Amino acid sequence: MSFNTDLKIGVLGGGQLGRMLIQSAININIDLRMMDLDPNAPCAKLVADFTVGDLEDFNAVYEFGKQCDILTIEIEKVNIEAMKKLQSEGVKVYPQPEIIEMIQDKRVQKQFYQDNNIPTAPFVLTENRADLEKLSDKFPAVHKIGKGGYDGRGVQVVKTKEDINKGFDAPSLLEDFVPFKKELAVIVSRNEDGEVNTFPVVEMVFHPEHNLVEYLLSPAIIEKSEEQKAKEVAIDIIQKLEMVGILAVEMFLTKDNEIMVNEIAPRPHNSGHQSIEGNFVSQYDQHLRAILNLPLGNTSTKISSAMVNILGEDGFTGDAKYEGMEEVMKISGASVHLYGKKLTKPFRKMGHVTITDPSLTSLKRKIEKVKSTLKVKA
Amino acid sequence: MSFNTDLKIGVLGGGQLGRMLIQSAININIDLRMMDLDPNAPCAKLVADFTVGDLEDFNAVYEFGKQCDILTIEIEKVNIEAMKKLQSEGVKVYPQPEIIEMIQDKRVQKQFYQDNNIPTAPFVLTENRADLEKLSDKFPAVHKIGKGGYDGRGVQVVKTKEDINKGFDAPSLLEDFVPFKKELAVIVSRNEDGEVNTFPVVEMVFHPEHNLVEYLLSPAIIEKSEEQKAKEVAIDIIQKLEMVGILAVEMFLTKDNEIMVNEIAPRPHNSGHQSIEGNFVSQYDQHLRAILNLPLGNTSTKISSAMVNILGEDGFTGDAKYEGMEEVMKISGASVHLYGKKLTKPFRKMGHVTITDPSLTSLKRKIEKVKSTLKVKA
Repeated sequence: MSFNTDLKIGVLGGGQLGRMLIQSAININIDLRMMDLDPNAPCAKLVADFTVGDLEDFNAVYEFGKQCDILTIEIEKVNIEAMKKLQSEGVKVYPQPEIIEMIQDKRVQKQFYQDNNIPTAPFVLTENRADLEKLSDKFPAVHKIGKGGYDGRGVQVVKTKEDINKGFDAPSLLEDFVPFKKELAVIVSRNEDGEVNTFPVVEMVFHPEHNLVEYLLSPAIIEKSEEQKAKEVAIDIIQKLEMVGILAVEMFLTKDNEIMVNEIAPRPHNSGHQSIEGNFVSQYDQHLRAILNLPLGNTSTKISSAMVNILGEDGFTGDAKYEGMEEVMKISGASVHLYGKKLTKPFRKMGHVTITDPSLTSLKRKIEKVKSTLKVKA
Repeated sequence: MSFNTDLKIGVLGGGQLGRMLIQSAININIDLRMMDLDPNAPCAKLVADFTVGDLEDFNAVYEFGKQCDILTIEIEKVNIEAMKKLQSEGVKVYPQPEIIEMIQDKRVQKQFYQDNNIPTAPFVLTENRADLEKLSDKFPAVHKIGKGGYDGRGVQVVKTKEDINKGFDAPSLLEDFVPFKKELAVIVSRNEDGEVNTFPVVEMVFHPEHNLVEYLLSPAIIEKSEEQKAKEVAIDIIQKLEMVGILAVEMFLTKDNEIMVNEIAPRPHNSGHQSIEGNFVSQYDQHLRAILNLPLGNTSTKISSAMVNILGEDGFTGDAKYEGMEEVMKISGASVHLYGKKLTKPFRKMGHVTITDPSLTSLKRKIEKVKSTLKVKA
């Protein structure tokens, strides 16, 4: 373990997570180099060394990665074979390619939970839509596509036989519908030396229709025993994976007070944005510490916080205009993060607002204020 | 007042203050453009639009500024005539050039305090070193050069006649030595609409020999009445100047519990770094809000903090190596900020560490730990 600002760190993906990673990297004088297919990606103008390239293309990823000492990701849709080759040639690839590969396929991910006694909802695999016909005794259930789902796409609730036509005609899994009280997330970190810690458990409130996080509370309002259990599950996963980096673990707290893992993401995550303002280290700081094999930081809550996603308003597509921004900036403790996306479209993640406030009542009032005030139109 | 991410904002100077300003600008999707004479300035690789140019050269500043909607500074040594011309041509120059001009000359600055009933130590002007001979009845006193002083240079304590040869042989001022209990600073902000607020008063502890801030406590441990008085003085100054932006006001708290202004800086300042972690908005956020005429943010203390400068170790000049960084990163609540300077030299500001901790005892113990652990060598 030694601190070296000359390491060449490459990041696959140049979206909003990369943007906040850059802000953290500036603090420790690390120049990130990034690759993204979109020449106007949120990070494109923020790093001196930005490569336009296809993250799913072997050669693009290999050529980019071989100039790096450490290669990491801010999105999971990346070419695994190139990362494996880079790893075999001595590049430190964190998270490890085998783990990203496992996570890319929800079917394999579920199998991992089952094989390792990680609590998760019961499931069966489906190969095509027709398979659902035979499984109607399991309805209501959740159909999840194996590969390619993202941000609410690739997940479909199948309540009755009438919903079968909404299911996926591709390798998928059908999961028991879990009656849950809350959706929780824990970000867990592990460095190369094996040091592990977790952020406080957070609680996510989803938009009823669009299956996107509407707001998040940190820390979650749950029992101490539930918090403990959620953290233990997260630590168990990262240790069984021997993963280096940070891992976001999304969970259900069931009506029976059980923790069930929903899915995991081996990178900074939407459920950790508020750590920038609310915790002693942010998830971005922590990810850099983990992959650089530096001591992990103190993840404790500095102050209670909430995070509200700024989504493109329904019905508007085009150059983004932010209505109500001045009003939001007047809210005490509101911190705006825009992602630098020129174009808005319905429900696109355009930014987020973190609100810090020691009073839960006041925090909730401010969340409502942000939600009712800030609109992204075109 | 309206929020617009397309504004072209130019910054004269590309040092560490600019670096932290960039981190804030990313949050609101503002691309800063910067100019600095040093092609390896701390900001050089962090903005897409970085111009190498002499900040004191009329043409360089004028050509840079005329592409901007708003022009600001992160250092005061800039060409004032060019800024005045830009202002007359419709560029918003904040802070206003007349104010920077006044501050560039400590003699004029002192005269401003005197003319406006701002409390400050009594002084007389000197034109050359020989003038000091006639003023020996004022010793011990402080000799300050009018123009060109910076970071402890240009200030000389003259205790006795034997020290006269250390005085400045250039237009200067001789100020009564103020027996003070504490050195304080207040950052005050004002936007275009005239909204004004202040950050909490902070307390600076100077290195006994090198006349540089050794560490800083936020908030200062002073009486409520002293805090009130310090804030009133800061507000009085920015309002009399009608300045737009943020203004750091350095003050003495005298042995008689009076506030006396030492000097002011119309930009983000060393005494405000800790606001990034310790306050609801940082000085950098606030500077952008002020010059963009957005609502000023909540400056309150989120958590008590301290700031320790990371200075180049005496006796070392060359490529910077950071000893003890891992140990510092283990300190709970320690946030490292490196400025991206390749070369270290004795007492050069290479970075700072902010420590957040609600307990003053623990905070002070951590300050000592940082000071004794982290060394910049070559």
